[in-house]
Amino acid sequence: MFESAEIGHAIDKETYEAEVPALREALLEAQFDLQQQARFPVIVLINGIEGAGKGETVKLLNEWMDPRLIEVRTFDQQTDEELARPPAWRYWRMLPAKGRMGVFFGNWYSQMLQGRVHGLFKDAVLDQAINQSERMEKMLCDEGALIFKFWFHLSKKQMKARLKALQDDPLHSWRISPLDWQQSHTYDKFVMYGERVIRRTSRDYAPWHVIEGVDAHYRSLTVGKILLEGLQNALKRPAVKPDKVNAAPLLTSVDQLSLLGSLDMSQRLEKNDYEEQLITEQARLSGLMRDKRMRRHALIAVFEGNDAAGKGGAIRRVAAALDPRQYSIVPIAAPTEDERAQPYLWRFWRQIPARGKFTVFDRSWYGRVLVERIEGFCSPADWMRAYGEINDFEEQISASGVIVVKFWLAIDKQTQLERFQERESTPFKRFKITEDDWRNREKWDDYRTAVGDMVDRTSTEVSPWTLVEANDKRWARVKVLRTLNRALEDAFEKSDKQEKKSKKDKK
Amino acid sequence: MFESAEIGHAIDKETYEAEVPALREALLEAQFDLQQQARFPVIVLINGIEGAGKGETVKLLNEWMDPRLIEVRTFDQQTDEELARPPAWRYWRMLPAKGRMGVFFGNWYSQMLQGRVHGLFKDAVLDQAINQSERMEKMLCDEGALIFKFWFHLSKKQMKARLKALQDDPLHSWRISPLDWQQSHTYDKFVMYGERVIRRTSRDYAPWHVIEGVDAHYRSLTVGKILLEGLQNALKRPAVKPDKVNAAPLLTSVDQLSLLGSLDMSQRLEKNDYEEQLITEQARLSGLMRDKRMRRHALIAVFEGNDAAGKGGAIRRVAAALDPRQYSIVPIAAPTEDERAQPYLWRFWRQIPARGKFTVFDRSWYGRVLVERIEGFCSPADWMRAYGEINDFEEQISASGVIVVKFWLAIDKQTQLERFQERESTPFKRFKITEDDWRNREKWDDYRTAVGDMVDRTSTEVSPWTLVEANDKRWARVKVLRTLNRALEDAFEKSDKQEKKSKKDKK
Repeated sequence: MFESAEIGHAIDKETYEAEVPALREALLEAQFDLQQQARFPVIVLINGIEGAGKGETVKLLNEWMDPRLIEVRTFDQQTDEELARPPAWRYWRMLPAKGRMGVFFGNWYSQMLQGRVHGLFKDAVLDQAINQSERMEKMLCDEGALIFKFWFHLSKKQMKARLKALQDDPLHSWRISPLDWQQSHTYDKFVMYGERVIRRTSRDYAPWHVIEGVDAHYRSLTVGKILLEGLQNALKRPAVKPDKVNAAPLLTSVDQLSLLGSLDMSQRLEKNDYEEQLITEQARLSGLMRDKRMRRHALIAVFEGNDAAGKGGAIRRVAAALDPRQYSIVPIAAPTEDERAQPYLWRFWRQIPARGKFTVFDRSWYGRVLVERIEGFCSPADWMRAYGEINDFEEQISASGVIVVKFWLAIDKQTQLERFQERESTPFKRFKITEDDWRNREKWDDYRTAVGDMVDRTSTEVSPWTLVEANDKRWARVKVLRTLNRALEDAFEKSDKQEKKSKKDKK
Repeated sequence: MFESAEIGHAIDKETYEAEVPALREALLEAQFDLQQQARFPVIVLINGIEGAGKGETVKLLNEWMDPRLIEVRTFDQQTDEELARPPAWRYWRMLPAKGRMGVFFGNWYSQMLQGRVHGLFKDAVLDQAINQSERMEKMLCDEGALIFKFWFHLSKKQMKARLKALQDDPLHSWRISPLDWQQSHTYDKFVMYGERVIRRTSRDYAPWHVIEGVDAHYRSLTVGKILLEGLQNALKRPAVKPDKVNAAPLLTSVDQLSLLGSLDMSQRLEKNDYEEQLITEQARLSGLMRDKRMRRHALIAVFEGNDAAGKGGAIRRVAAALDPRQYSIVPIAAPTEDERAQPYLWRFWRQIPARGKFTVFDRSWYGRVLVERIEGFCSPADWMRAYGEINDFEEQISASGVIVVKFWLAIDKQTQLERFQERESTPFKRFKITEDDWRNREKWDDYRTAVGDMVDRTSTEVSPWTLVEANDKRWARVKVLRTLNRALEDAFEKSDKQEKKSKKDKK
């Protein structure tokens, strides 16, 4: 894999100096075009062997291009705000907006390689990290991002010579590196695992470019030309991408059975039972959220449902059980300008709770496969891939201890009508009903189908959907609270077991 | 000051229950109106004696109102990202957007009171903190924010009884407080310094409300009514506020002398001198940025100047001296939607560098007293108060170690014309010149006046302006680099001296 990067590529000074001015000019122009179109972000990943010119190249790119449109991001030590959240959070928060270029110097690849070379984990975990990166990059590209992945390579002999030279140079002797490159087996391991990573993550939409790092002219010119060609190609592509899904559209149920249809909508609670159970469940939730095991977890509750199904009321009953300092409620409406300049899931990543905290989403990332699908706000290709992206997202955050509980509050059509009419006739509820609600109601069957597909495709072991029969508000509220409590208890039990097991293993 | 809050205010259950429904309804309606108008944010500060019902009140407000429109913020231990920046940064990043309500439970007042009661500093420092808060709140209100400040009070006897009761209640025994309220003198000190703080920070635009905390009915109803009345008043105020400045408009110089006119625009550097000095200054900057004393500081460079004065070129020469991981360049254009929903300075606070880092602003917060003043994008009242707000801002960040260096790059009218023409005739520079540039040129004299006023009013000891004669690009670039280097050296020297002094004081 690195053979072509050890053959002594070099470019003489004359050729280099003759080619650079035109290259710079073209890069500047492409960069300007990128900003003007503001259609997609550019992400440049910088990886490879110590001393192979990574830093020099990034510096040169900043000189050649307009540095005001480039963001160089380093990911060294995690901050405590980052440590309190899933690992990918630090990358999401640093993504460049559409029209800008982010250079990720140190990134998910460096993190997994460091870990593997240091022996923090074995190949299986490395492979998990590899797969996760692949899915992340696929998603970014599907959202329009242009990704360049550069691997700067040196042979072992070349590296040793280079490190020696750097050490003797007072301008560079301050360099520190978390891997001890002076040791011969560090190089060997790094190259071995590096190969595994490159092999598995070089894809048509985001290929690796292995660059021989010995000769600065060759290295710089090659990187510059790859960037230029990639940029120019992407800028020429039509603004509206063709709908690429060849898969057949989702099939509507061939009989009349549906998941929502199978709910027993007559479920209800008497007032006395309700009041008793509500207080019990609220006290239980309050206790669980103060449990010290909560420090290892965070909680997310997603509320989706028919209009007027009682999401707001259910959320208030949950909130009432808790100290307002523990939770925050995020109402999801149309994305803002800053949010539109980022991949779809960005605005939800922003709101991921830190360990010990609880975030309630009043509507959520499922908007893509519900309202956006039905109203045609995104293409079928977009909502079709959303199922997988959402599963990846929830798996990632669950893996780091976030408990994700998802509710669909279901009412029947008649109940909705009654509630709409009641809202219209009650002065202080009137703001709860708009033209949109009446329009959505006409699409009742479309929503029914979309909800069925959503549950079939995103109700997973790590985060199952709970369908809540909500014709009776009391029943719904108690069921919501009880489900949250069970989810917390299950998660605590599971981590207790894991802890016991890991203690036992240590003995 | 607390007399009226120790007289045993109480409201009986019947009255309370009779009044609450209408109050809740009205609060909900006001909240909805607030969201719809989205004209201003509401900030509620919660302070006072332990056990006086702070937490209970916040919880109740979340129950009474729509919790989806309320953000409860706590400010306990600072995170390392917060510790690396000026103290006010943590508050700025948590400000609610227009149309929303932020409850700051723990805030600048708690921080200063904790510090003073614990004896971390004396009255002089407390008073500095008080003045800073006052200026911050004045600015927030001038930007339209509605601020409520609640102080929950108990007499010492009442507090002791309350703490005893809470201790015995298993639901509350987990409470911790960083101040040891069990100690009698803690209460005395807290009340004494609390009085000082309230006395000095109760202003017409943001008065304190001292609430007796013993009786829950009285406490809740009082807070609810104060909020309601304040909200309703603010919502009724006209959308466009009258221009309140009674001060005479700034006087244009009565003779023809001006600051910019006093520059010697013939300053220039020969090519050889330039190349030598540029390299020297770049190496010096590179060394200073790697100096270990830089860990105590951050650096901000502000670039303003005439169109085509060479800001971009100067910035590139600065960047070229540095490792791209150390700096970021922030180009300032029109604010985004998220930014427009916040006070003017918010988008600059977002970009404050962490200690050890360097942020270059390509245009800056001075836009308000330059382009916004001249184009009438804001009212005279807005840009008149901006001078003071900017001085406060720069003083605050300087006080925490940020070195602020500000450049005005000045060219004469003829030079600008030549550069515009050159840009229009060079293909890859054509994007640098727009209709706007020609229009701005027509306002040459207005800019001249505005720059004069800006420098007169914001060139301070903590962060002076440097006027750069930029007809000759070489001269300008070297002067910029040299100024940055001197600023760094001065700051290092100053902190060395302080360190020596404090070591000496300790002996």
